[in-house]
Amino acid sequence: MPIIKYQDIKLSEVKMNDAESVSKAVVIAAAEGWQGHALRVFKLGPGGFTPRHRHGWEHVNYIIAGRGRLMIENEVYDLKEKDFAFVPPEREHRFENTGDDDFEFICIVPDRGEH
Amino acid sequence: MPIIKYQDIKLSEVKMNDAESVSKAVVIAAAEGWQGHALRVFKLGPGGFTPRHRHGWEHVNYIIAGRGRLMIENEVYDLKEKDFAFVPPEREHRFENTGDDDFEFICIVPDRGEH
Repeated sequence: MPIIKYQDIKLSEVKMNDAESVSKAVVIAAAEGWQGHALRVFKLGPGGFTPRHRHGWEHVNYIIAGRGRLMIENEVYDLKEKDFAFVPPEREHRFENTGDDDFEFICIVPDRGEH
Repeated sequence: MPIIKYQDIKLSEVKMNDAESVSKAVVIAAAEGWQGHALRVFKLGPGGFTPRHRHGWEHVNYIIAGRGRLMIENEVYDLKEKDFAFVPPEREHRFENTGDDDFEFICIVPDRGEH
């Protein structure tokens, strides 16, 4: 099925150290025919955040809904619906929900970043 | 700059045969540090459409705003804000705005698809 409706996306809780209220779904990846990359949707509930971490691949992000903050090394950027972000490889980063609603975003990584 | 604000995206009209009211911006690609792929934003004005065409690379799509229709070979799919689509390589396809407002979507392609 080449179309994935937003309401059909099934998010699962992500258990990670130093993370709070994070859930994720893989929406378009090898199973859908996209070789080499994976498009995931993340949802951070109010007060939620991802761990401060770094890895050898980039993130390509688009904000679906809500308000949040992206830390890259020592810089902090405010993000809201319809903004885009690019996190280069090997930069320490962290996403945080700063609003009262869910903060939802697309995060595209090369295959080795999705596990 | 790792953040691209929606309001700062500058769309340019795309002139193609058999297209109507199409504009485009390259938002995240090699210049932003993403090697191998390009994330573009397309806007089809009311009544707008892209050509019926096929090519050797896939499209990874997300609908930012509006309502439209995606034809893939002989199938037609209705799309609206927050839906995702994957158009496999070599399939004939066409996007069409079916609403009264702009139909805007993300379209990710490998580098050779952005020219």
